[in-house]
Amino acid sequence: MSAKPEIRIGMVGYGFIGKVHTLAYRLLPMIYDPFPVRIRLVGVSAASQDSTRKGVEQGEYEFGTTNWRELVARDDIDVINCCTPNFLHKEVVIAAMRAGKHVYCDKPLAMSLDEAREIVSVAHETGLQNQMTFNYRFIPAMMRAKQLVEDGFLGRVFSFRAAYLHPGYIDPQRPISWRLDAAQGGGGALFDLGSHVLDLVRFLLGEYEEVHAIAETFIKERPLPGKPDHMMPVKVDDLTLMMVRMANGAVGTLEASRLATGTNDELRLEIHGSEGALRFNLMDPNWLYVYDAREPGAPIGGERGFKAIETVQRYPPPAVLPGPKLSIGWMRYHIASQYDFITSLVEGRPSSPSFVDGMKVQEVMEAGYISARGKEWVSLPLG
Amino acid sequence: MSAKPEIRIGMVGYGFIGKVHTLAYRLLPMIYDPFPVRIRLVGVSAASQDSTRKGVEQGEYEFGTTNWRELVARDDIDVINCCTPNFLHKEVVIAAMRAGKHVYCDKPLAMSLDEAREIVSVAHETGLQNQMTFNYRFIPAMMRAKQLVEDGFLGRVFSFRAAYLHPGYIDPQRPISWRLDAAQGGGGALFDLGSHVLDLVRFLLGEYEEVHAIAETFIKERPLPGKPDHMMPVKVDDLTLMMVRMANGAVGTLEASRLATGTNDELRLEIHGSEGALRFNLMDPNWLYVYDAREPGAPIGGERGFKAIETVQRYPPPAVLPGPKLSIGWMRYHIASQYDFITSLVEGRPSSPSFVDGMKVQEVMEAGYISARGKEWVSLPLG
Amino acid sequence: MSAKPEIRIGMVGYGFIGKVHTLAYRLLPMIYDPFPVRIRLVGVSAASQDSTRKGVEQGEYEFGTTNWRELVARDDIDVINCCTPNFLHKEVVIAAMRAGKHVYCDKPLAMSLDEAREIVSVAHETGLQNQMTFNYRFIPAMMRAKQLVEDGFLGRVFSFRAAYLHPGYIDPQRPISWRLDAAQGGGGALFDLGSHVLDLVRFLLGEYEEVHAIAETFIKERPLPGKPDHMMPVKVDDLTLMMVRMANGAVGTLEASRLATGTNDELRLEIHGSEGALRFNLMDPNWLYVYDAREPGAPIGGERGFKAIETVQRYPPPAVLPGPKLSIGWMRYHIASQYDFITSLVEGRPSSPSFVDGMKVQEVMEAGYISARGKEWVSLPLG
Amino acid sequence: MSAKPEIRIGMVGYGFIGKVHTLAYRLLPMIYDPFPVRIRLVGVSAASQDSTRKGVEQGEYEFGTTNWRELVARDDIDVINCCTPNFLHKEVVIAAMRAGKHVYCDKPLAMSLDEAREIVSVAHETGLQNQMTFNYRFIPAMMRAKQLVEDGFLGRVFSFRAAYLHPGYIDPQRPISWRLDAAQGGGGALFDLGSHVLDLVRFLLGEYEEVHAIAETFIKERPLPGKPDHMMPVKVDDLTLMMVRMANGAVGTLEASRLATGTNDELRLEIHGSEGALRFNLMDPNWLYVYDAREPGAPIGGERGFKAIETVQRYPPPAVLPGPKLSIGWMRYHIASQYDFITSLVEGRPSSPSFVDGMKVQEVMEAGYISARGKEWVSLPLG
Repeated sequence: MSAKPEIRIGMVGYGFIGKVHTLAYRLLPMIYDPFPVRIRLVGVSAASQDSTRKGVEQGEYEFGTTNWRELVARDDIDVINCCTPNFLHKEVVIAAMRAGKHVYCDKPLAMSLDEAREIVSVAHETGLQNQMTFNYRFIPAMMRAKQLVEDGFLGRVFSFRAAYLHPGYIDPQRPISWRLDAAQGGGGALFDLGSHVLDLVRFLLGEYEEVHAIAETFIKERPLPGKPDHMMPVKVDDLTLMMVRMANGAVGTLEASRLATGTNDELRLEIHGSEGALRFNLMDPNWLYVYDAREPGAPIGGERGFKAIETVQRYPPPAVLPGPKLSIGWMRYHIASQYDFITSLVEGRPSSPSFVDGMKVQEVMEAGYISARGKEWVSLPLG
Repeated sequence: MSAKPEIRIGMVGYGFIGKVHTLAYRLLPMIYDPFPVRIRLVGVSAASQDSTRKGVEQGEYEFGTTNWRELVARDDIDVINCCTPNFLHKEVVIAAMRAGKHVYCDKPLAMSLDEAREIVSVAHETGLQNQMTFNYRFIPAMMRAKQLVEDGFLGRVFSFRAAYLHPGYIDPQRPISWRLDAAQGGGGALFDLGSHVLDLVRFLLGEYEEVHAIAETFIKERPLPGKPDHMMPVKVDDLTLMMVRMANGAVGTLEASRLATGTNDELRLEIHGSEGALRFNLMDPNWLYVYDAREPGAPIGGERGFKAIETVQRYPPPAVLPGPKLSIGWMRYHIASQYDFITSLVEGRPSSPSFVDGMKVQEVMEAGYISARGKEWVSLPLG
Repeated sequence: MSAKPEIRIGMVGYGFIGKVHTLAYRLLPMIYDPFPVRIRLVGVSAASQDSTRKGVEQGEYEFGTTNWRELVARDDIDVINCCTPNFLHKEVVIAAMRAGKHVYCDKPLAMSLDEAREIVSVAHETGLQNQMTFNYRFIPAMMRAKQLVEDGFLGRVFSFRAAYLHPGYIDPQRPISWRLDAAQGGGGALFDLGSHVLDLVRFLLGEYEEVHAIAETFIKERPLPGKPDHMMPVKVDDLTLMMVRMANGAVGTLEASRLATGTNDELRLEIHGSEGALRFNLMDPNWLYVYDAREPGAPIGGERGFKAIETVQRYPPPAVLPGPKLSIGWMRYHIASQYDFITSLVEGRPSSPSFVDGMKVQEVMEAGYISARGKEWVSLPLG
Repeated sequence: MSAKPEIRIGMVGYGFIGKVHTLAYRLLPMIYDPFPVRIRLVGVSAASQDSTRKGVEQGEYEFGTTNWRELVARDDIDVINCCTPNFLHKEVVIAAMRAGKHVYCDKPLAMSLDEAREIVSVAHETGLQNQMTFNYRFIPAMMRAKQLVEDGFLGRVFSFRAAYLHPGYIDPQRPISWRLDAAQGGGGALFDLGSHVLDLVRFLLGEYEEVHAIAETFIKERPLPGKPDHMMPVKVDDLTLMMVRMANGAVGTLEASRLATGTNDELRLEIHGSEGALRFNLMDPNWLYVYDAREPGAPIGGERGFKAIETVQRYPPPAVLPGPKLSIGWMRYHIASQYDFITSLVEGRPSSPSFVDGMKVQEVMEAGYISARGKEWVSLPLG
């Protein structure tokens, strides 16, 4: 009945983030109007039978399997959406691209820079579309910030502060999981949270030139799930601080913390330039705060000050549900990110942020860990 | 394959709010886990063929019709969801109940107190479940506020300030629509926005005793859609102010404005009691601000102050997607409201807020308009 | 040694506000540079010997007396500063003017409109300078707001919300004092707090046309000081709400409360106009929040939003100590108000706000009490 | 007439900060009641005749001189208040102590750690009272924070963020001054702003263990005053970033910037511990934000959140003018700091923060510059 083209999705992984991506796919045709394509949720694959069954039921996928290679092998799937733990990304993503699938992959791209480079190499070779879940680029306020930066609003950038702060691992009795296991996660707070904020800074300010990091593991052992007496060592960082110097001459600090008592999901960004400044906080997502230093500041008639630009649901067009005045929440950015990915497929423009962007972030994270181990500055790009 | 009971929905009206309700129904099974029922979106009815087609396509309804009576007549529909302009509510809702359907109805319940009373009378007679879309009761912060009020947190309530502020009608060239037409909307800002805030105050503080209102129409004519030279008179209020006295002795002000320059979707509530205070703002929805006057306030060791309780996505249980730390937006309360309605059907408990609550709000609005016309206090209940 | 002219002050009353005015006089020559005059604190008069002695010591007045008529009678005093309880204002102020003194008088001007009219009549007759302590007009943010309003920034004004909220009288054991005694204070929260906010609204939006008020006394008896068992009835309002209609067509609410749990010293003002909006809060005094509806609001390039204009210490010029970036507090507005008064004397321009402004506020307060007693709208001016 | 002991002040330096200290001394007897001593402003010394004359006039000093050694030599002076440019601190302070004077000295203590050590050595030798102008320790919110930290409120401290942000030097045409001249100022943003924030962190969290810094000079030349074409090189930092590790195991970032577009006078502090968190911002000085992680956080009855403790003017006792509810500004902390110094003299308790505290901050700043030059971590204490 609908003459729209169809895009057929295979979802690999159905943990928290697999659910979120599934939910977003289901929302797209209502949120964006007109929506140029029909999304078909073909198959879902999770490690356990239970999760797979739940994925089918909740997401109304046509089928489920515990073997993700089945999804990759099918002809009736166009896109593989990779939501596995980090250690599986490389294998899934490369297999998918080798099988001719476009790929949408959760962050971080890989376990290491070497893995990331291998993935990017296959991406170039196969020429398929690929996009990272750097969903925070799609916050309306961040889309507006990008416009402003490109318009030269900031002038010469002096400095910035960026942080992604979570409180989730303060309890030392919280059990070990793949996110705390170097062999499965590859890194800790820096991988999980830092990847987002490193990408956002790069999105707005360009490439990193050198980095210096502290990577701390404050809580050095945690119990196995369900076994409070069986403690396992934790090797990944629960808090990483960085000082960085950007190619454009700006300096700044970055922080990723899982021990940030009092926060909920607090991604913050502040940038100071010679002509203007920007501020954003993910817990106050409806506004981008901008300061225009070109405005008159003299006593009489002074107009300078931070302005809370109403970005709300205004980006990107076309007009979206529920509407441009209504407050937004965390799901919004996933939806907008997947909208951008899906429309890039329809329109044949390159998906962005791509695996190359994922690799760039991987490189900075790797440089950060090298720096922290050696207590030294590390220059980018890595050799 | 699923042994879950099914609840079959018929959606009457597919304008903005019909889309929102549809979207929420589609999300429920992913947001709440476990979700005890299978929602089937059976039919949708809109005034135009175009809207009906869009409803079918976006909402994946099984069929569409431009005749809402078809939905009411069908055996395979359990629930009628009424999202029409206000002037149709009475007819749709009564027909649905007479046909044995449970009803979920957008606010305000009716065009007048007489209509509302008639609806409530049929509801009592038929014994079917009925719920108002007073979705703001389901903001996590408001659910927490209700707990606190019931626990006696506020002590004796002295006063409150409540307002629902929108900027949508400041442009005098914005054309007339059913919301600006007394014959179709029944009222203006007070009906559209004020109904929400009147309900919230009643939810937290109980019944109204007397009201005094100003109802202003600042922009007294507007063009017909597409005909900028054809001006039509506007008879409904674009701004209503009220002073009220509650049965519990508290006094307060209420405001509903469509001319609130600088706001987006700003519902505010502040309550001062002898033992504590509450504050909430819909544009900052993740927190309920509470002040406990029982805490020590002396110079040394003082602890008094407003606390931003993290309500975020924590209410209601069970645990919801996307998770208890992640920021929420406007869709969240519709989802929670419809969750509550659907589970009330499954569990057989009375739906709430019910049409009786809708009628109570209708009564206060009517009293407000009477007061504004007569420039006098009006006591409740109306005779 | 100094060729500057001298202005010689006599302070009548040395309670809290007398101390504040004294402190401000002592600061003026350091805060403003250049400062065109030498302030001489000649005499202070308080009801008790103790207070008088403290006034002399703290304020370094040349002498003290418990008989304020001594101050009024002296030739070496130019200005009488009236900080007595309200019931004495008329007598002190008229005697001072009759004796040829300029007068700076704490708010409210008088106990009633009749008294205020009598004072204004003597002021006109004697032609002396007179100024009310409507010190909040001199908040840098309010001075900036006044400029904006005069520049037409707001367009057509639709509505406003104004409130002055204090928590000081929530404790029912707080003893009676002159502020709670109708015979000495003349009124309650409306006189004490409401006079400020009524003046500010008038300063920015012009004259009142009609008012409707609720004046509540929630705590109906309080103990005598030091006698917790000897309860006295309280006749003055501890909370007054008003709905008002202004001569310019705007409508709004005003509130004065001594029972506003959770506040400290919270004077708030919000104004919505067709072209712009303003917001201010005395607990966040360094900024005036302005919204310019003329700015582009479209999706791409949208710039609308509330801007926190840095008013800080920037108004009025000349440059002030401690400097234009450093945060301000409550004393600042008294200092600026007295600076304006003193320089008006030096420059021979009419002091403002004058006793006429004090009388206008008195009239609105009186109308409010009449309205509250009669539960009816009261038009201004009163006959 | 007054039996109070007298403390006689000699002020060396009458630039901006000399004025501020003078103003504060004049206010003390009114702000604190009772105030145990009589302050006599005996003499003031400034570099120019003009400034000296202004000091005498504004501050009502008994005499002025352009030779500070006159003040040091006089018998009728008890306290030397040192407000000179940094390069003179050592000479003035040591001469004063050698002459038997107590000393109150603006920050930073000296031009180098060597100088600071020499000053401390003379202080120990002479046994006189000495205090640094680390006035931000005396912000009511910081005094409350100190109590909380000492009570163990934070638990194990994980991390912090501290910054002092100013916008004052963004304009490249702002002329050179002693604050931009290494020979007179000794350092740049780190000395001027960083000394405050380094002290506050140490006040709350204890000693530094190692530091790593970036010290940037973005604007590398500036004109001579009044000679826009005569550019001089700037050698001092306009922005310094630090990562630090504390002796208690916490890690954090510190920043001092004179190029922080959009700020006014923004000192920020955030600390995350295992049991609680603290936040403060100097532009919002009336509250200390605290988060108690021991409170229940479960869905039903959750109470966790940041609380804005009303510190306002409540610290320190005794009761202060203008009162415990009224908003404070920047002058407040100087007044409280000088109150503490003066009362330490009266009561014979050791003044604090002392020159030893000044020396400790000097050491961290010196370590910071060494680190920035060598791009390496520097351990404390320095050898």
